[in-house]
Amino acid sequence: MSDIKPITIYAHGIGPNPIKVLIVLEELGIPYEKIEVDNPKAEEYTKINPNGRVPTIIDPNTDLTLWESGAIIEYLVETYDKEGKLTVKDAKDKWHLKQYLHFQMSGQGPYFGQAVWFHRFHPEDVPSAKTRYEEQITRVLEVLDNILKDKEYLVADKLTYADLAFVPWSSIVTTPQVVGPNFREKYEVDKKYPNFLAWHERVSSRPSVARARGEKK
Amino acid sequence: MSDIKPITIYAHGIGPNPIKVLIVLEELGIPYEKIEVDNPKAEEYTKINPNGRVPTIIDPNTDLTLWESGAIIEYLVETYDKEGKLTVKDAKDKWHLKQYLHFQMSGQGPYFGQAVWFHRFHPEDVPSAKTRYEEQITRVLEVLDNILKDKEYLVADKLTYADLAFVPWSSIVTTPQVVGPNFREKYEVDKKYPNFLAWHERVSSRPSVARARGEKK
Repeated sequence: MSDIKPITIYAHGIGPNPIKVLIVLEELGIPYEKIEVDNPKAEEYTKINPNGRVPTIIDPNTDLTLWESGAIIEYLVETYDKEGKLTVKDAKDKWHLKQYLHFQMSGQGPYFGQAVWFHRFHPEDVPSAKTRYEEQITRVLEVLDNILKDKEYLVADKLTYADLAFVPWSSIVTTPQVVGPNFREKYEVDKKYPNFLAWHERVSSRPSVARARGEKK
Repeated sequence: MSDIKPITIYAHGIGPNPIKVLIVLEELGIPYEKIEVDNPKAEEYTKINPNGRVPTIIDPNTDLTLWESGAIIEYLVETYDKEGKLTVKDAKDKWHLKQYLHFQMSGQGPYFGQAVWFHRFHPEDVPSAKTRYEEQITRVLEVLDNILKDKEYLVADKLTYADLAFVPWSSIVTTPQVVGPNFREKYEVDKKYPNFLAWHERVSSRPSVARARGEKK
């Protein structure tokens, strides 16, 4: 895609939501320039994104400024994925991709995020809140595990943006210390949610994911 | 739309997420049949929606089963709003509608929902958690208030599905007792977020909203 001017993406460290967008940029081979936002609440950034959160993109090819990772992913796929690498052809399947994207945006990210909050950032130790959000994580794992029974990917037996969107937040389940020292063992993730885990490993092992995280380039 | 077979929508009481979809159905004059789901975790329902949450729709006109209110709204508008009553024409504006829909889905609903949880359903009283989510509400109100300065609607000076999507959750701010007895006064909503409040009253006063809530028919 050498005729495409680089898309600017505003990100912050390894925050899961920018990583989602970076994975899609990497998968589609879209050139981009990443700008690290030190303080998303500073006016320099809120004049671009009044919500004060990352990511935001500015696409000089279409003169579009867009925020919310879910909307950005839809935009990138619709605008640049002309060969359908990360999407599907069937009309019903297309709506199911959007269904899973919204599930990721509203049902996975915020709840997994609250688990991280109460484990790492809340000003006091609130065991009942930690438990609540740990159970919200396992609820989502169970839902995904059921959906993924006998399936390699969420929709139409192929990798799509919907699968990729879950990767960054799902990774907190397999990364020690993020939501407690032993989440994976404590909740028997390997035993209880094997379909989820196999899918997560399948999708997260893609080179695009490592590149999005800055692990390889 | 008399040639359209009624769409089945699964809802639960006055849960905000089904109400969002009902508002859009009402605005577009799409015939529908509402089915009350007593227990979204029961197998009878999870075989339709494995996530165990409302809403879900089944559209007999296209043979589509779809869940997640954000995806359903996008589907209804793209499929049935041929005159563009709730959408916009400009390509950039279209993406901004999706941006705001995702903001509503990921940034408003879940956080407002956690405020309700800690005020009404959490097994113990956790003042610091209540405060956290009250402040998340006011954060969102401030963002919306800034965006709505000198504007009647979020995008393109016209009512769209993006405005309507915020109504059900925003209503907890103006409804006493949902997030504490005096949220509106305590956080000086009228004084601090007048643009938000005027917009919320403008959009929520539409007859479609009352009908969606079953207040008039």
